[in-house]
Amino acid sequence: MLNTFILSLNPKVSYLPENDKIVLQFRDRKLTFKQPTIGFRLALNSLKVGKGVTKKELINLVQQEDGICGLFTFNSYLQKLISLGWIYHSIDSLTTAIPLAEDYEFLMPTIDWQKTSFTLSRFAYLHQVNGQMILESPLSKAQVLLHSGHSLAIIAKLAQPQTYTSLLQEFSTLNEAKIKLFLNLLVATQTVNDSSESQLEDTLAQWDFHDLLFHSRSRKGRHNQPTGATYRFQGKIQPLPAVKSSISSKIIKLYQPNIKRLKTKDISLTEALETRRSIRNYAQIPINAKEIGEFLYRTARVKQIIKSKQGEYTSRPYPSGGGLYELELYPLIHNCQGINSGFYHYDPLAHQLCLLSELNQDTEKMLKDAWLASGKHNQPQILISIAARFTRLSWKYESIAYSLILKHVGVLYQTMYLVATAMNLAPCALGSGNADLFTKVAATNYYAESSVGEFILGSNPIVK
Amino acid sequence: MLNTFILSLNPKVSYLPENDKIVLQFRDRKLTFKQPTIGFRLALNSLKVGKGVTKKELINLVQQEDGICGLFTFNSYLQKLISLGWIYHSIDSLTTAIPLAEDYEFLMPTIDWQKTSFTLSRFAYLHQVNGQMILESPLSKAQVLLHSGHSLAIIAKLAQPQTYTSLLQEFSTLNEAKIKLFLNLLVATQTVNDSSESQLEDTLAQWDFHDLLFHSRSRKGRHNQPTGATYRFQGKIQPLPAVKSSISSKIIKLYQPNIKRLKTKDISLTEALETRRSIRNYAQIPINAKEIGEFLYRTARVKQIIKSKQGEYTSRPYPSGGGLYELELYPLIHNCQGINSGFYHYDPLAHQLCLLSELNQDTEKMLKDAWLASGKHNQPQILISIAARFTRLSWKYESIAYSLILKHVGVLYQTMYLVATAMNLAPCALGSGNADLFTKVAATNYYAESSVGEFILGSNPIVK
Repeated sequence: MLNTFILSLNPKVSYLPENDKIVLQFRDRKLTFKQPTIGFRLALNSLKVGKGVTKKELINLVQQEDGICGLFTFNSYLQKLISLGWIYHSIDSLTTAIPLAEDYEFLMPTIDWQKTSFTLSRFAYLHQVNGQMILESPLSKAQVLLHSGHSLAIIAKLAQPQTYTSLLQEFSTLNEAKIKLFLNLLVATQTVNDSSESQLEDTLAQWDFHDLLFHSRSRKGRHNQPTGATYRFQGKIQPLPAVKSSISSKIIKLYQPNIKRLKTKDISLTEALETRRSIRNYAQIPINAKEIGEFLYRTARVKQIIKSKQGEYTSRPYPSGGGLYELELYPLIHNCQGINSGFYHYDPLAHQLCLLSELNQDTEKMLKDAWLASGKHNQPQILISIAARFTRLSWKYESIAYSLILKHVGVLYQTMYLVATAMNLAPCALGSGNADLFTKVAATNYYAESSVGEFILGSNPIVK
Repeated sequence: MLNTFILSLNPKVSYLPENDKIVLQFRDRKLTFKQPTIGFRLALNSLKVGKGVTKKELINLVQQEDGICGLFTFNSYLQKLISLGWIYHSIDSLTTAIPLAEDYEFLMPTIDWQKTSFTLSRFAYLHQVNGQMILESPLSKAQVLLHSGHSLAIIAKLAQPQTYTSLLQEFSTLNEAKIKLFLNLLVATQTVNDSSESQLEDTLAQWDFHDLLFHSRSRKGRHNQPTGATYRFQGKIQPLPAVKSSISSKIIKLYQPNIKRLKTKDISLTEALETRRSIRNYAQIPINAKEIGEFLYRTARVKQIIKSKQGEYTSRPYPSGGGLYELELYPLIHNCQGINSGFYHYDPLAHQLCLLSELNQDTEKMLKDAWLASGKHNQPQILISIAARFTRLSWKYESIAYSLILKHVGVLYQTMYLVATAMNLAPCALGSGNADLFTKVAATNYYAESSVGEFILGSNPIVK
């Protein structure tokens, strides 16, 4: 049983020894060592093959062959390999820390073992990935693979503050040095906090767990998942159609404005941008059917359907990643001249509203949520729920799909704000809504299509 | 040792027995039972006090006092309490399933114990919350509290498919019925999959873990965290200032367009909306300093500073939740007439660029990432990284802060698209970027301020 870290080279790093140089490669990153010494070759080899090697063993190897001078060079090479994230740190039978990104550090903390207490970070999470239990954290550039019941039991114990001594009492079959080593690794990978004060405390306190996790996984930098348009389900799963088919037979044809005429007669872009604002109170005479028709046509209609090898795309007034347009609009008409109250789906191709349900207890809840989210002003005349057909986007995009969806919601919000401003309506985007309640009202499946944004609209009390 | 679920009432449900009715209340939800029978009173009491009660015990209680007829009423009341999410299901010493939301179900699956295998869902995650180990999943409306090392060890074992028999062999100190009960609870809470086929398989396969987790936690419906403007750090942590102070002494004053003149002379909103498109190739003559000045002024300047009790707000050309404006722009000037190449911060109050660094290896990487994300067209002339000062928003908003940030990025994207269209520039929003690389280049702290979006800009090859 070894009481020190075992180092090994990420097995996916390819290793091309040649006569006068060694080339290591991982993904698009290459590292060339010219005229490597014998000691270095041997050291690299023992990092690459078998179960890994301790630092002490590496030093012995290099020193024996290359002498003290060789040791300095080797040390800087090893540091380089570590900072590239190519070196795993393991503890025999317990755990392995696997780097996920470049600019990696594995810093051994200075720990006062008598005084320090340790707690599992509230950002750390344990989950199953390909049949293994992995501890991860958005604070970390590593993932911690847990090999044994012991390591899992220690992690669970760390839900509450533990000292080195309390753990030693609990896990008497492990020796002292091993428990210390494990705590070292957990602190070095930021999955466990020691009780020393952090300068970042106030900043981290203001992060919700799900927010920081999402930031770290949807942006590049500290994960190793493919990111972007990877088309990973092509040939396996059919992509969703570009336009959701009509889901009701109770249809209201909507008014179509004359776009050509609006291009010349509409207010200027600058006028719209500079005068746009959220208006949460409404005029006594409510919004009318013609206005809804014009508003939806100018913000969200399908302008064109385009066919390609990867399926159908559409073009609409607001931009959308890959032309995929996963967002669907569901106007809840609460108070509108010329349209009966009810919960509708907007068919952006036929430019019509399809009635899904009359007002009921659940639509009342939706309206109440919206009223609360908008700061308890007037009851919305129109509440537009924006839902996403998620897999329309995630079929193509990996790691970033949901982040794109929320950016699209923002893009649509601003489009709606500006058109409402030009039409002298009262617009307001909302920050929160209930996705489960939405699925109940719209009769959709939560994972296939649920709400991601809300926008309220009404008649402007200020006449221009 | 009981081999059946123990039911108990969520201790936060307040219980107001009166003479002729019982009122239960949790948050803003009230449930009134008029003229409750003695059996029902006793049953409710045993759900409320002590360690809970089995369903069989409840039935005995009610039947004894109210007879068979009372049993039917009681059963429907109990179902109501369960569907409201007020009833915990526990297994003595192992675990408790705590509902997080209404419309809750705790359905006992029909399991063929000889054939079925069980695996921990790839959406389930185990983490520390207030000193307890909790298993959660965005598929679930419950969280599963794990009381003992045993329950944790079983969860860990379930990283790989297990049958009831294989678990029984491994955990011989637990009896058969208890392991079955635990598996029942895990399947009922959607934290563990049984090997039966799911209709949702294709849909769920297309969800990234972090995406679904974020969707379930940032939207209301299946969590019980406060959501919205809760100001939870007021009086504890100082909010960030409304405008980030200038961070460099190397300053370039920018051109200011005449907004008054643009209001009348600019193209119409409809013209901008209808002709907007992503352009990823540039004219030979690059964009110039005047154009950058006009673009930033029209999209992102501070128009006004407003003081309030909760601190300072600003007004800018695009909308932002609570007027908090957490987004910061960092133009990487790569090829621009009249401005030296370099990485700049945009000071939106003084309307000037502050040089942070010359082009270097890291800014090259940023440009390459952007070039890849835009589909390998021309090298961007300008790459604007959009970063968020996260705590500016999370100081006020709970659960939804990061989702608001991404919506703001979208709002800003569309604002930039439209202004670029009006100015006949070549705009393109990007879907991915490296947040860690950004912090290296901008010298910010990842958790305090890192990038959440990217936008590229250049001279339009099509002259209008």
